[in-house]
Amino acid sequence: MTDATPSSSPSTRADGRADDELRPITITRGWLDHAAGSVLVEFGGTKVLCAASASEGVPRWRKGSGLGWVTAEYAMLPAATNTRSDRESVKGRIGGRTHEISRLIGRSLRAVIDYQALGENTIVLDCDVLQADGGTRTAAITGAYVALADAVAHLRASGALTGEPLTGSVAAVSVGIIDGVPRLDLPYVEDVRAETDMNVVMTGEGKFVEVQGTAEGAAFDRAELDALLALAEKGCADLTRMQQEALRA
Amino acid sequence: MTDATPSSSPSTRADGRADDELRPITITRGWLDHAAGSVLVEFGGTKVLCAASASEGVPRWRKGSGLGWVTAEYAMLPAATNTRSDRESVKGRIGGRTHEISRLIGRSLRAVIDYQALGENTIVLDCDVLQADGGTRTAAITGAYVALADAVAHLRASGALTGEPLTGSVAAVSVGIIDGVPRLDLPYVEDVRAETDMNVVMTGEGKFVEVQGTAEGAAFDRAELDALLALAEKGCADLTRMQQEALRA
Amino acid sequence: MTDATPSSSPSTRADGRADDELRPITITRGWLDHAAGSVLVEFGGTKVLCAASASEGVPRWRKGSGLGWVTAEYAMLPAATNTRSDRESVKGRIGGRTHEISRLIGRSLRAVIDYQALGENTIVLDCDVLQADGGTRTAAITGAYVALADAVAHLRASGALTGEPLTGSVAAVSVGIIDGVPRLDLPYVEDVRAETDMNVVMTGEGKFVEVQGTAEGAAFDRAELDALLALAEKGCADLTRMQQEALRA
Amino acid sequence: MTDATPSSSPSTRADGRADDELRPITITRGWLDHAAGSVLVEFGGTKVLCAASASEGVPRWRKGSGLGWVTAEYAMLPAATNTRSDRESVKGRIGGRTHEISRLIGRSLRAVIDYQALGENTIVLDCDVLQADGGTRTAAITGAYVALADAVAHLRASGALTGEPLTGSVAAVSVGIIDGVPRLDLPYVEDVRAETDMNVVMTGEGKFVEVQGTAEGAAFDRAELDALLALAEKGCADLTRMQQEALRA
Amino acid sequence: MTDATPSSSPSTRADGRADDELRPITITRGWLDHAAGSVLVEFGGTKVLCAASASEGVPRWRKGSGLGWVTAEYAMLPAATNTRSDRESVKGRIGGRTHEISRLIGRSLRAVIDYQALGENTIVLDCDVLQADGGTRTAAITGAYVALADAVAHLRASGALTGEPLTGSVAAVSVGIIDGVPRLDLPYVEDVRAETDMNVVMTGEGKFVEVQGTAEGAAFDRAELDALLALAEKGCADLTRMQQEALRA
Amino acid sequence: MTDATPSSSPSTRADGRADDELRPITITRGWLDHAAGSVLVEFGGTKVLCAASASEGVPRWRKGSGLGWVTAEYAMLPAATNTRSDRESVKGRIGGRTHEISRLIGRSLRAVIDYQALGENTIVLDCDVLQADGGTRTAAITGAYVALADAVAHLRASGALTGEPLTGSVAAVSVGIIDGVPRLDLPYVEDVRAETDMNVVMTGEGKFVEVQGTAEGAAFDRAELDALLALAEKGCADLTRMQQEALRA
Repeated sequence: MTDATPSSSPSTRADGRADDELRPITITRGWLDHAAGSVLVEFGGTKVLCAASASEGVPRWRKGSGLGWVTAEYAMLPAATNTRSDRESVKGRIGGRTHEISRLIGRSLRAVIDYQALGENTIVLDCDVLQADGGTRTAAITGAYVALADAVAHLRASGALTGEPLTGSVAAVSVGIIDGVPRLDLPYVEDVRAETDMNVVMTGEGKFVEVQGTAEGAAFDRAELDALLALAEKGCADLTRMQQEALRA
Repeated sequence: MTDATPSSSPSTRADGRADDELRPITITRGWLDHAAGSVLVEFGGTKVLCAASASEGVPRWRKGSGLGWVTAEYAMLPAATNTRSDRESVKGRIGGRTHEISRLIGRSLRAVIDYQALGENTIVLDCDVLQADGGTRTAAITGAYVALADAVAHLRASGALTGEPLTGSVAAVSVGIIDGVPRLDLPYVEDVRAETDMNVVMTGEGKFVEVQGTAEGAAFDRAELDALLALAEKGCADLTRMQQEALRA
Repeated sequence: MTDATPSSSPSTRADGRADDELRPITITRGWLDHAAGSVLVEFGGTKVLCAASASEGVPRWRKGSGLGWVTAEYAMLPAATNTRSDRESVKGRIGGRTHEISRLIGRSLRAVIDYQALGENTIVLDCDVLQADGGTRTAAITGAYVALADAVAHLRASGALTGEPLTGSVAAVSVGIIDGVPRLDLPYVEDVRAETDMNVVMTGEGKFVEVQGTAEGAAFDRAELDALLALAEKGCADLTRMQQEALRA
Repeated sequence: MTDATPSSSPSTRADGRADDELRPITITRGWLDHAAGSVLVEFGGTKVLCAASASEGVPRWRKGSGLGWVTAEYAMLPAATNTRSDRESVKGRIGGRTHEISRLIGRSLRAVIDYQALGENTIVLDCDVLQADGGTRTAAITGAYVALADAVAHLRASGALTGEPLTGSVAAVSVGIIDGVPRLDLPYVEDVRAETDMNVVMTGEGKFVEVQGTAEGAAFDRAELDALLALAEKGCADLTRMQQEALRA
Repeated sequence: MTDATPSSSPSTRADGRADDELRPITITRGWLDHAAGSVLVEFGGTKVLCAASASEGVPRWRKGSGLGWVTAEYAMLPAATNTRSDRESVKGRIGGRTHEISRLIGRSLRAVIDYQALGENTIVLDCDVLQADGGTRTAAITGAYVALADAVAHLRASGALTGEPLTGSVAAVSVGIIDGVPRLDLPYVEDVRAETDMNVVMTGEGKFVEVQGTAEGAAFDRAELDALLALAEKGCADLTRMQQEALRA
Repeated sequence: MTDATPSSSPSTRADGRADDELRPITITRGWLDHAAGSVLVEFGGTKVLCAASASEGVPRWRKGSGLGWVTAEYAMLPAATNTRSDRESVKGRIGGRTHEISRLIGRSLRAVIDYQALGENTIVLDCDVLQADGGTRTAAITGAYVALADAVAHLRASGALTGEPLTGSVAAVSVGIIDGVPRLDLPYVEDVRAETDMNVVMTGEGKFVEVQGTAEGAAFDRAELDALLALAEKGCADLTRMQQEALRA
């Protein structure tokens, strides 16, 4: 619900933000009536509906282990982008990008899960992008964590678990270099122009869960990499604070 | 935005409505930033996001005809229902129910389209159910018409067409017999108990576009069919009025 | 084997029939050697092979319930139509129309099944259109009922059931409005010109199981709907009589 | 329409045939109203509907070559076999056996086609097994040739070609060794017990187009192979005569 | 490792071989570290990697029978051919040719397996063509037999079986008629020009397991068929000797 | 062909390497006869066959742009791993991991391509893992670059291009933290035990193309990230030197 504090340097970004400033972030809990946890998360124009479904039991390969499971599926509505994209269900196959992001979200959330404490319960996080304006995967991770926390509370309330399966929190943000300048939380117009693009997932304690940097144009050197990591650390810290506020509400 | 007027008979419905009364209906236009038309339509707990994408050109089999095309795709998010359902993109195939409803929505909207006036433009209506509580296909048709009207206005504003491709409006509602009593606009709890279930699509002028009645339990006689049709006529008239109000706003 | 009795009004139909007259109907039982029940049904040029396969056991979701199951699959041979259509097995996916009709046939037959009396047995009805000349789905339902009755008799003869799982009979017919005139049992040449097209499934006792009316051109009013329903009631009554004759043979 | 002449040796086959005798063969032309050629071919209990669809033009990779194309698709109805088999369109993929037989039929027919004389026309042979009792692929080839001949005549009558694209005829038969005895035209009960199974496709002039022999149990020696080839030569000669009779009718 | 002995007649083949002479054959065992058996087999420029994976247990339909199972999967790397071919995993479906060859390899190997002696173990033979220059299926069978023999030895060494599941050996070779001359072991340049093409699988004892002859151009007569069979008998005998040498190494 | 120089510290790795030492690396060019470039690359037990196929023309969306295209497909043979994995072509869909790695390889190679200088030519890199022992994606990138360089030389030799489309070289290596110790180039036994796993792609000039770090167990801090990046820089420099040697050979 809170913007990141503006930096003092004069902004040259189209939306007037400082280079190390997040877009307006909104985290709306309980957006759906039935899901164990549900969050509509907005990073500027990017809107992702994150729904956590909890069920007893685990996939076959994990049965009898006493351990739980957490997984995620990411998808984008056809009209979420500027130009309508074809529906993957109609094409009959999931694209590589969708697969990749689903796997990233799942891994990120599992980084803060104690399977033993979760017990043989499964939580599935569905992250459906209703509107895409850059940073959909990082918004999805950030919102999905909150939905996951609600689902865990739901399981505890229903008596399905007693301990604390959450060992921490996770948040994620994109950073990139545009016209030689490192920037935080790229909207679509910046993303397409970025020479380097990086998605960083961090725990609430400031440790790294995932670092995925890609040279879109020229390769980047170590100094640029360091600058991007610093920006990401700031952004994830801001997002962590907003997640905490949302969960206190 | 308006409830249907309550009838005078004492209600026995769980939500306190009269038998011929719609659930609270909300039609929110412009829910997305980019789509030519976009509507979040709510029939009680049922929430459907209807997005109209307009593009120049028509499918190959229609090229050079001077005629436009309107089509629709319906889908449900995995967490839209009480119990999470598998994603059709993951299963790699679209289910029969999804196919059937997509085709119904498309036919319903095409009933009020003058292809000649639309010219060689295509409008795709994506109807994604965010939350399902009965009547998702009728909510989708009712909302999609409004999104379609916005998309047509968008095309006209951009100079892509000059005439009026809309020859009227369409709205749709479900009716059914529960414990022998005909009722309007069934939520999930009534839908699963209905002996007979009917979806009716009508034009704003009160003519029928689609009548789909199914005996879920016992077969129904002509008198029951007549009672259901009368209820549907009332419901569609109410919805038509709400569509007009929404479009005036 | 019997035509419907001709009406007195002078016919304007290409095949010389009265508006309320069925095409020549043939119901040939025992067309296959192995199936529990098999019927080649012909509605004029439309030929559908309906085969009922009976097996012990039910789908997994129904196991242990003591209840049986009846389902149907409809398909069309590639050369059944004027212009060869692609094979769905080669395309790797079933089209929406095929799905829709398979579901319709299954629902129609289940309307006259007492699952308890059927016991944990499954009957699958395969309805393969060998030649299509309009009304393939209604011919399929009408023929499938006879094959189903034979399969039930077969199960009883083999001792797999003792009671009577059939609570009645079902038959189906198409009706439509061509050049403003309501007509019964449309062949292909009438079907493509119909302004409104309706398929009606009824029990032998004259109650409705399914009513599916679609405005292909202009929307239809209540008077037209009533005229179509009356025609369908006559047609289904005629077909019911022919089914009874076939089963007595 | 004619049985093969019985041999003098006392038969030990379940159906009383001599070892070198075909089952009753029926070739019914014009079984469908629309196809350019259509044949219901029966080899004993095996019934295959062979439909030839002719169309102007050829596949993309052959355009502008002046050459025609002939191809085939084989499939089996679910209820064609003793125990119902799953529909390949429902499974979403074609099995290896279906692929293999479709390819065999296509190659066999192309062996007697002069592409130049056919001109840029395509003939598709759909061979759908309505009932299977052994030898479905050989019945399909034998019937498909007759349907192909009719389709060629149809193209000539319509002025689509002037020369003679048929350079001969093809017929096919199965042979096998059962309990050490070589036999012609195996029904299902013999086929499952065969130690060696061979399908042979021959031209009307007695040359080989395909020889496909498989040791199901023990490997076979050269003498056994020679005996099988001799039986097949006799069977194909008989079938060629029946094809000629059918085409004269 | 050994060439077939050259015949005395002056060769007219592009690679200088006699008409009844094999290409240089190499059989390299143990090409992979983990597989129970693995062979890189080369027939001239054709290179196939044959890997045998052994596992306890059998497919569901065979459980509790006490019998083992052997199956094979054939595939070609995209760059194996002159012109890159599309990957079947990317196309989402296996082509008919791949299916057909996988089935042929499986049947050929099963011809020398005693399921009882194998016990409830499964051996899967993966035959991946790394480079294709004609005769890939016959090279695959010849190499797969050696990998199978190694896998059987592996199972015996691990105590998973005690008897001898191999009842003999199998090898395979292609033969064909080019410019009227029968030739052994066709490379790609000969294969595309062959009027008749035949693949023959034989046991080490000189019996036939599979004979698959196809007229690519003109149909072939009995004398030609006999000449091809004689060539194949010689080729398979040579290959059997090379397999024995390889297994002794 | 050259091992990395061993470090002085006493190794605790199972294979006796220093923590900053590569496994034995082999780069064999020209492994296939037909591909424009082909390399068998080995990182210890990991063997990847990288084949570059060059063709004139570009995908449709790029036609007429004057720009070339480079893409990659990664796959693993079923028997490449310890336990046989199912074939993706048989499953009918490509897994997320395969998609992800194919995309990574393509992006990495495109980072050193000047599309303008490549002209409207397409180069496809097929990277098929014949044996997997950790680091298959990094071996694939390292080998694919060499195959790409050969394919470019091939295109130049054939006159299909004149300039220099390669703007540099790329190599890749995996690094990870095992028992708290950062290590270079992980084999399978180390990979499964790694707390953090990172793949790094760098240019020959020492800039980053891709950085993909994942916390498999505990999240990692900035100091650990820095240590991993330093190891990767060393490893990529070593690999770059080996690529140069291989290309000089």
